Amino acid sequence: MYDLIIVGAGPAGITAGIYAARKRMDFLVVTQDIGGQAALSWDIENYIGYQFITGMELVKKFREHLEQFKVGIKEGEQVNLISRYKDTILIETDKGNYESRTVVIASGRKPRRLGVDGEDGFKNRGVTYCATCDGPLFAGRDVAVIGGGNSALDAVLQLSKISGRIYLIDAAPQLRADPVMVEKAEKSGNVFIYNNTMVERIFGEKFVQGISVSRSGRTEDLDVQGVFIEIGSFPSSGFVNDVAKNDTGEILVNCRNETSVPGIFAAGDVTDVPAKQIIVACGEGAKAVLSAFEYNNKHA
Amino acid sequence: MYDLIIVGAGPAGITAGIYAARKRMDFLVVTQDIGGQAALSWDIENYIGYQFITGMELVKKFREHLEQFKVGIKEGEQVNLISRYKDTILIETDKGNYESRTVVIASGRKPRRLGVDGEDGFKNRGVTYCATCDGPLFAGRDVAVIGGGNSALDAVLQLSKISGRIYLIDAAPQLRADPVMVEKAEKSGNVFIYNNTMVERIFGEKFVQGISVSRSGRTEDLDVQGVFIEIGSFPSSGFVNDVAKNDTGEILVNCRNETSVPGIFAAGDVTDVPAKQIIVACGEGAKAVLSAFEYNNKHA
Repeated sequence: MYDLIIVGAGPAGITAGIYAARKRMDFLVVTQDIGGQAALSWDIENYIGYQFITGMELVKKFREHLEQFKVGIKEGEQVNLISRYKDTILIETDKGNYESRTVVIASGRKPRRLGVDGEDGFKNRGVTYCATCDGPLFAGRDVAVIGGGNSALDAVLQLSKISGRIYLIDAAPQLRADPVMVEKAEKSGNVFIYNNTMVERIFGEKFVQGISVSRSGRTEDLDVQGVFIEIGSFPSSGFVNDVAKNDTGEILVNCRNETSVPGIFAAGDVTDVPAKQIIVACGEGAKAVLSAFEYNNKHA
Repeated sequence: MYDLIIVGAGPAGITAGIYAARKRMDFLVVTQDIGGQAALSWDIENYIGYQFITGMELVKKFREHLEQFKVGIKEGEQVNLISRYKDTILIETDKGNYESRTVVIASGRKPRRLGVDGEDGFKNRGVTYCATCDGPLFAGRDVAVIGGGNSALDAVLQLSKISGRIYLIDAAPQLRADPVMVEKAEKSGNVFIYNNTMVERIFGEKFVQGISVSRSGRTEDLDVQGVFIEIGSFPSSGFVNDVAKNDTGEILVNCRNETSVPGIFAAGDVTDVPAKQIIVACGEGAKAVLSAFEYNNKHA
């Protein structure tokens, strides 16, 4: 029986791990990967204390910070079900079962699919959900980025240094990203912004050769070799049924990161806290563990 | 009329400033100092991404991060009153008045007084509230640290490298600091822990020469040249009367950092969020500004 199991190892989960280690809790981190969505960001300029750092570098620092403690990390392990039985939280994974007095769910989010013809067929043959991972494959090529929020603009800014023409295709009338990012994109010279524009399909032969887009009823084909889909994400909360969630599947938490089930806490992008930011996820991860620690003290 | 005024420039206020700058808000930071209580910490090992950093170094990085933006910072300015009049927040300081559509209060906390004879008379003549600032003055001297939480242990660990004997005087039966800190103190060899012990008075001539302590009715004098008072702190919230607070004066906030007054937000150690941690204050500062930004958009 563990004091705590942390599910996920993005910024919230890693911070939770560091706080749990400092509190000398008997705990385990169960996660599919290290770094979560933060690892996929290119330029991070709003993690306080680092004026400029890549997602990969920041995650490396986070990981090293966690690993200076002797922490049990089950990497590559997928949680299938979390439930409460009497005073015990049961965690079922694809590799085994655990029992714990508390859980912090910090499982983050996964990218949303666009849902058009060609998306699945050309996946990893031109269609990608991670500009950081796959951007370098498209050096000098023309590409499309689909979306209009911060993650789409982050992809555009990365690609603007690597690719040829970049078509930014946004269904909305106006971009929703931070103005500082939009200004950079506009200044880059190789970014073409299509507002009010829908992607109809992705086409090609073995690899992507283009996309069809429509605006005000007129359809146009754009020659691109890469399609970066950045239209948001959904919370990875399917493995826990008993806790209250909102319409989009985000786990509801109060200011102490308690969920509707005693002993189950949640932190970071999987929750209904509106600010999906690395620095916020870190703060929430710390708060969740301090709440779990207090919970264990009260239920000793 | 500003979009936003941020009161305070500790971790919450600085993060708020960085987020406000990135959102291109027209804003001002009004603060007595830069860094707040974080600047007074010696070893910081739980700001994620820095395995080990001093408070002063971290605050320097925070400040540089903020100052890369062209931010108006009114340093050394004290806020006397914040109130709402119609849709405007009025901020009265010792140097002038400002009007803003929103305010983020991030004014942090101030050290609590012990309330014994000699405390005021020997202030800065042996009595101090900041081990980081004043520790080096007591190289090789015997000192007392009063308290039993993380800030007391932080003081002890700093002083253990500098001072002679260190008496840790705690009124409670057991220390409340993180076990990792207590273990280090116990290993240091020059720390003597007095549990269940009250300070009766601080005595000396021109400078501190000792303290009288009592345990189970028995009084004892300890020869010390320095007295570090680390018994907690209280929120700097006296300048705002209209917002709801708890018994200790902390400003009540919801998960979006809204206070009871529309347009007034709060973040960090001045609020009732229980985790008084740098990483948490940063996350809260970011959330507060994103809420203020949204508020302005809705009340344009």
